[in-house]
Amino acid sequence: MPVEKSNFEPLVVIHFSSKTPEETKNWMIERLIAKQDENDGAALLVRYDSDSENHNDILLIGATLDRLLLGAEELRIKKPYKNDTSREFLISDIHNFDKSENLDSFLLKSEKQLIIWEEIQNVRPMQHESTIPGVPTKLIEPNHDTILCLLHKLNYIISVFPLHDKEDMKLTERDWFMSKNSFFKSQDIHKVRNYFGEEVAYYFEFLEFYTKALRLPAVLGLCVSLWPGSDFYKYSLFCIFNVIWWTVFMEKWKRLSNRLAYQWGSYDLQIFERPRPLYYGDLKTSPITNQQERRYPKWKRVLKKYLVSYPILICCLALSLWIYFAFYGIQMKTDHDYPLDDSLFFIYAKLMRTLPSTGYSLLILGLNLIYRKIATHLTDFENHRLQTSYENNLTSKLFIFYFMNCFIGLFYEAFINANFANVVQLLTVFVIFNAIFLKFTEQIGPYVIKRFKKNQLIERKSQNVHVSEAVKQAITLSSFAGTYGDYLTIFEQYGYVALFSAVFPWITICALINNIFELRADAFKYCYVYQRPFIQRASNIGSWRYAFDILSSVAIVTNTALIAMQPSVRAYFSSYTDAEYILMFVIAEHVLLALKFAIGFAIPSTPHEIQIAKEKNLYESNQALRNERERRASKAQVSITKL
Amino acid sequence: MPVEKSNFEPLVVIHFSSKTPEETKNWMIERLIAKQDENDGAALLVRYDSDSENHNDILLIGATLDRLLLGAEELRIKKPYKNDTSREFLISDIHNFDKSENLDSFLLKSEKQLIIWEEIQNVRPMQHESTIPGVPTKLIEPNHDTILCLLHKLNYIISVFPLHDKEDMKLTERDWFMSKNSFFKSQDIHKVRNYFGEEVAYYFEFLEFYTKALRLPAVLGLCVSLWPGSDFYKYSLFCIFNVIWWTVFMEKWKRLSNRLAYQWGSYDLQIFERPRPLYYGDLKTSPITNQQERRYPKWKRVLKKYLVSYPILICCLALSLWIYFAFYGIQMKTDHDYPLDDSLFFIYAKLMRTLPSTGYSLLILGLNLIYRKIATHLTDFENHRLQTSYENNLTSKLFIFYFMNCFIGLFYEAFINANFANVVQLLTVFVIFNAIFLKFTEQIGPYVIKRFKKNQLIERKSQNVHVSEAVKQAITLSSFAGTYGDYLTIFEQYGYVALFSAVFPWITICALINNIFELRADAFKYCYVYQRPFIQRASNIGSWRYAFDILSSVAIVTNTALIAMQPSVRAYFSSYTDAEYILMFVIAEHVLLALKFAIGFAIPSTPHEIQIAKEKNLYESNQALRNERERRASKAQVSITKL
Repeated sequence: MPVEKSNFEPLVVIHFSSKTPEETKNWMIERLIAKQDENDGAALLVRYDSDSENHNDILLIGATLDRLLLGAEELRIKKPYKNDTSREFLISDIHNFDKSENLDSFLLKSEKQLIIWEEIQNVRPMQHESTIPGVPTKLIEPNHDTILCLLHKLNYIISVFPLHDKEDMKLTERDWFMSKNSFFKSQDIHKVRNYFGEEVAYYFEFLEFYTKALRLPAVLGLCVSLWPGSDFYKYSLFCIFNVIWWTVFMEKWKRLSNRLAYQWGSYDLQIFERPRPLYYGDLKTSPITNQQERRYPKWKRVLKKYLVSYPILICCLALSLWIYFAFYGIQMKTDHDYPLDDSLFFIYAKLMRTLPSTGYSLLILGLNLIYRKIATHLTDFENHRLQTSYENNLTSKLFIFYFMNCFIGLFYEAFINANFANVVQLLTVFVIFNAIFLKFTEQIGPYVIKRFKKNQLIERKSQNVHVSEAVKQAITLSSFAGTYGDYLTIFEQYGYVALFSAVFPWITICALINNIFELRADAFKYCYVYQRPFIQRASNIGSWRYAFDILSSVAIVTNTALIAMQPSVRAYFSSYTDAEYILMFVIAEHVLLALKFAIGFAIPSTPHEIQIAKEKNLYESNQALRNERERRASKAQVSITKL
Repeated sequence: MPVEKSNFEPLVVIHFSSKTPEETKNWMIERLIAKQDENDGAALLVRYDSDSENHNDILLIGATLDRLLLGAEELRIKKPYKNDTSREFLISDIHNFDKSENLDSFLLKSEKQLIIWEEIQNVRPMQHESTIPGVPTKLIEPNHDTILCLLHKLNYIISVFPLHDKEDMKLTERDWFMSKNSFFKSQDIHKVRNYFGEEVAYYFEFLEFYTKALRLPAVLGLCVSLWPGSDFYKYSLFCIFNVIWWTVFMEKWKRLSNRLAYQWGSYDLQIFERPRPLYYGDLKTSPITNQQERRYPKWKRVLKKYLVSYPILICCLALSLWIYFAFYGIQMKTDHDYPLDDSLFFIYAKLMRTLPSTGYSLLILGLNLIYRKIATHLTDFENHRLQTSYENNLTSKLFIFYFMNCFIGLFYEAFINANFANVVQLLTVFVIFNAIFLKFTEQIGPYVIKRFKKNQLIERKSQNVHVSEAVKQAITLSSFAGTYGDYLTIFEQYGYVALFSAVFPWITICALINNIFELRADAFKYCYVYQRPFIQRASNIGSWRYAFDILSSVAIVTNTALIAMQPSVRAYFSSYTDAEYILMFVIAEHVLLALKFAIGFAIPSTPHEIQIAKEKNLYESNQALRNERERRASKAQVSITKL
């Protein structure tokens, strides 16, 4: 059944489980290679990996150039146009696009893979089919399931992933993190975008931008720590600096991300975004495009949110709160059992006392992971139509939970107990765990293993290595899990930096050092630890922007409160009554909050030239609509002048 | 020179000053009637008012139907299309628009007047002309001045205004404020929009929406005032209610205004808005439309703002502050000179004591008026390109000053002096002045005069009244001054309601009663006191939205503070220390602020169906652009299949 062609270029791999019946595989293959017009197939090219010892479990997918160009037009992929801005690709207009002389390399590998991936995801059983061939017991729900979904549910598909391109990857790596002076050079984010897609590129650009923004606060933080002056002045100046700095940072980021969205042509994504393949619903005529489209009633989604998602979220929050207080009880008991007065057991007691917080940190890590699973399932269940709204909903769920789970302990210690020693202890444990433990398990460990494996590969490479070699290597990797985990790590860290840095400036320095390595480690992880991801379009970092913005606002409150709670600062204002002292800080906090909003308001979030370019685009398309209407109307000429 | 035609319909009036040289008038007339293609004229029809005793000072302007339709196309006026949404008018597509059978009434009177107004404003001297005919001393700056501007500067033009249409106005009035049951019926805002344009319609819709929103708080406020329960519970419940209520109010208003913008086709105004006629700059190629356009460098505007506007604004604020403290000194002195202990002079003393605050209120009114002039001049000077950005800049200037000028006294009395008796006194005086004094001078007085004049008019009408009668009446009216004054009145009132209502709930009731009359009085003012305004396009209430939003946020702070400062509430928490008491209220305030932002975030500001309609429009115009590109490309066919 599989087609063999001389110029077949394998782009995507489907890895079947070995228990998949031959008949089912053939059924899928048939649908994949069926012509589009006749049987509503995907018109792709497929081939079993000939050298595989896995008994036809590895299916390689490719496509003809025509098919790929057609797909690019359908997906409205944007390409650089006449040295101007990007435009949606149109086959008939191809000669006006840059680099269209060489059609083979006109589309990026990653774009080709995306086109194939969209097709694989959207292949559905034919209308008359009611059961899956090879699995007569499994019924097909019409208009609901895609073939990929059905086989996923039966656990017949282990993974679908695009193949890495060694040459491309080398080039990308070089300008990303592997060059000699990569520690002093900015990453070439456009290469990352071309290879991994916009979502990943935004993550790395944000990480780099954030890391760069950390430099000045880190230096100032160091000065503040070492400067012998009055606590009040140094803390409050540092706090004011932080408020302004991080507000400007967020605004500048908005500008930068809008600029990138424009350069990458993803700024109008939301309107032309295709529905998620996992989205299900009845076929209805779309009010926007007038074409048949799946539609799921909005009220059902709202109901699911309010009756299922939110109650579960609240339960999780309650559980997290309960765990904190349980930990707190144990910590109290430990502190009581191991007093620090006995010099003989001092170190032992100190060690025993850190045990609960270490355990708690581990528990938080575990809870976070479990919660991420729950949040993903809930968001899947809500059945969002677009990837962007799916991600926004997932992010806000993660944000609320992580905020609670990561910071509740710190908040309690700092603001209820005013026990700064404990805050420091918790912060230290958290930072260490995040920075070292996570990096070891997630990145450095795999790095060493890969390094070892890579050496093996280089040996083999010299022996005229085949595609199946690359496939064999790729299927051993873990599949790409999205950027959530990475964002959450930065989010948590930014939380520590923003919320507590006024009083504990050394966090900023830790964060800076950590992030310099984090960027490289993450980049390595995307290249060597995960399977290559399909590119994911994005026009910004999504809801993370709001999450970071909210943290910045909360940070103003916590930082002023922390400064006010320092005994040295209180002593400085010893002539004030408690009430006056508190009011002074409350007013200061309100002034800072107002300042933050004023700055946010004053800096436009879209750069001027991008605004103009967008307006130009809007103007042109509006003009085209006018022209079209005029042309259509010209047949039925109305002679106004006669009137 | 003036053209006389049998079907001439006078739409707009230019009122020349009697000292204008005949030659200058003829020069302008020549440019107004010159053909568009030959001499870049306006191609309008003009006629002197034949019956006028003003010696050819009244020029009536009209236009042929062709000219008006052409103008409608140029101005991208939107008209209802095939019973669907509005679309930009296109002459060639005219048969697809609703009501296009009768071309004479296809364009609204107000639209015709707008088209003529745009033309009058944009008529410029010819390139070779260097002086104004009749005024050889006055040089013309090339590419800078329009004829209208030049004559304005020479004080040759008293006013330019559109003529009222008695029949239209009667119909509009009936569904607006003149019907028997108008106190129980909503106004028909679409009729107002058709007659007065979107800017005025938005004002009235907002006023009505706000008045309706006042009803529940007024009733609850009454209950709170009368309820004998604990001050703490009633105040704080009322405060929480207010926060939620006014936040939802603003969000609902955003939805409503977006819906109206869509219905009126003004949602994409900013992109296709024509530059203000008073905007000057060098002719340059627009990066958006590729056509010749006036452009004024952005840095010059920024410089003007920072070097002139803001310093003057700060001076005005300082002056207003200084005046308040001067008043405060006088009030202190009066209070000292007229003690209330002597029962004989009690009423006299009481009266003398209100004198300073009355004087201060008058002074504030005066200052507000002067400042409005200054702000208008400054914004003119900044030379904004679009009417919307002009208005946004003017509004923010007015907002800052009014906020300071109107509320500084109340804030000082309430939060620094904690003298609630004075707050009540100031509030009462302000509210009375705003409600009664302003209404009398601005509205009720003119109403009585008009009523009288109207009776005269009806008498004359029976004697086959001529156009010149209507003109004669109109030139006695004051010219329309924009909606700023009216917005500022509501803004000030909303300030009193929002900032102080938790403790002085009776303000809400006053505001409600006031507004019910305000709406009718304002409507009357627009119909009978002012000359008819040219319609002004708008897609929302502009920066006023932010002004009201900021007030709502500040209101949370002031209301919690006011509650906390009530002696009865403090007594209720007598077991708390001062510090605990303050902290409790600070936390409550932060929770309310967070609640406000959460509500604002949760309610989408664009209704779902409008979002879909907008996306549909965007999709269609994008599709048209694709089609155009495909068509253009089809000549240079690239055969992909051969490759």
